[in-house]
Amino acid sequence: MASSKAYGDRVASHSNRAAQDLLRTMERKQSNLCVSVDVTSKAAFLAVVEAVGPFVCLIKTHVDVIADFDADLVEQLTQLAAKHDFLIFEDRKFADIGNTVSLQYAGGIYKIASWSHITNAHTVPGPGIIAGLAKVGLPLGRGLLLLAEMSSAGNLATGAYSDQTIAMARAHRDFVVGFIAMQRPSGPADEDFLILTPGVQLGSKGDALGQQYRTPREVVFDSGCDVIIVGRGVTGSGESINVEEVQHQARRYRDEGWSAYRERIASN
Amino acid sequence: MASSKAYGDRVASHSNRAAQDLLRTMERKQSNLCVSVDVTSKAAFLAVVEAVGPFVCLIKTHVDVIADFDADLVEQLTQLAAKHDFLIFEDRKFADIGNTVSLQYAGGIYKIASWSHITNAHTVPGPGIIAGLAKVGLPLGRGLLLLAEMSSAGNLATGAYSDQTIAMARAHRDFVVGFIAMQRPSGPADEDFLILTPGVQLGSKGDALGQQYRTPREVVFDSGCDVIIVGRGVTGSGESINVEEVQHQARRYRDEGWSAYRERIASN
Repeated sequence: MASSKAYGDRVASHSNRAAQDLLRTMERKQSNLCVSVDVTSKAAFLAVVEAVGPFVCLIKTHVDVIADFDADLVEQLTQLAAKHDFLIFEDRKFADIGNTVSLQYAGGIYKIASWSHITNAHTVPGPGIIAGLAKVGLPLGRGLLLLAEMSSAGNLATGAYSDQTIAMARAHRDFVVGFIAMQRPSGPADEDFLILTPGVQLGSKGDALGQQYRTPREVVFDSGCDVIIVGRGVTGSGESINVEEVQHQARRYRDEGWSAYRERIASN
Repeated sequence: MASSKAYGDRVASHSNRAAQDLLRTMERKQSNLCVSVDVTSKAAFLAVVEAVGPFVCLIKTHVDVIADFDADLVEQLTQLAAKHDFLIFEDRKFADIGNTVSLQYAGGIYKIASWSHITNAHTVPGPGIIAGLAKVGLPLGRGLLLLAEMSSAGNLATGAYSDQTIAMARAHRDFVVGFIAMQRPSGPADEDFLILTPGVQLGSKGDALGQQYRTPREVVFDSGCDVIIVGRGVTGSGESINVEEVQHQARRYRDEGWSAYRERIASN
């Protein structure tokens, strides 16, 4: 199964360009670390991306929390992605009907589809949300992750909800490249989904608003996930960026994540 | 129960200012019509709002589909709300963990909490999403709707998911004023939630991306919902606005919705 294979050997299992590019990047940079950059000013955002760029395969954004977002931010982010060799994942969590999400993905101020290699969607609106996003993203070579599970306390992405999400993904393999999930779902041996996992932090169990944390090893070795998504563990929770400390943490999470992955493929 | 009472008589059942304001507006304007304005240019957006303003209790927006959104749009929208006596509902469908949604609701380019009386959220992330939004919205007198059901084909907001959503609402009655739902949920006789219902159109059964339609009478009389949300039925689906036709449709949906409501309270 996918979790026993090297990232680079899994490229052939994917037809989607974003999925192939991500796997190649992970192999090339020896990193399964995605840093989630949730600061609220353009300057802090770009400073964090510049600092962590060398250590990550993927940068996760919420561009709608940045007070002074502008087209130049996208331009600079895209240049940093080329300079440091990472992909971009706007964590939009699309969650509307197909007609609406196609407008939200393609247009507005953010034009997410034009610069974000990967984005994600909830399945609660039904399969129309995938069709609406695919209409925009597939011609651009973009990939979609579905939220099969979440890391927050008391979430409803469990049981039948998760199962139906996986079924929707299997029906749209050209565009759906994998899941936001806490573990690799069971499936046929030759089935290869990318599993990206939030809620990763060393040394904290959670926040005051329901977030719950696990370690890189729990996520990658124990649960068979592919990419660890680390936010406040790397960036801290304020707006002031200590570049040295941020880089220290990014290196630490990258090393932890990669060594858990090496251990995983060696043990299979 | 709530569905047998006049809108104006239900103000006393709500402690939330946005809920009270909406019920008073509905009574005063004799309208339970919410128009969903999904055009993608500022000019078309303001033209539609100006045209339908006299007929609605609420304008539903997706500001992130407007390519030339700016602060002046919010300014003009707010002035139109005062001029025509309606409230504003940004249909953001928040769907992230509490820490993230509090940033998305308060900040970014859109600063939704500063101008939108009502917004909505999915419950899939668990109750932390309500806490994260309430932290921002409650001090401003805003109200939240939870998505208990959806109108799109094959959606997962059913059964236990809907029941858990209703339970989360009951635990946060100061901020959660009601639901996006297809019918009034059963509950204690003195329980009063506002039920806002999308997927309303006369003369169409659906679109190509899974949207499904019902008539105002089915929604208000048969299913006991309070507000009909009409999009393409009033505005058409393109960007070119025929003001006379849009007003004709808005008047028609307002009359249909109000007469179904009059019939409902008379029959109880």
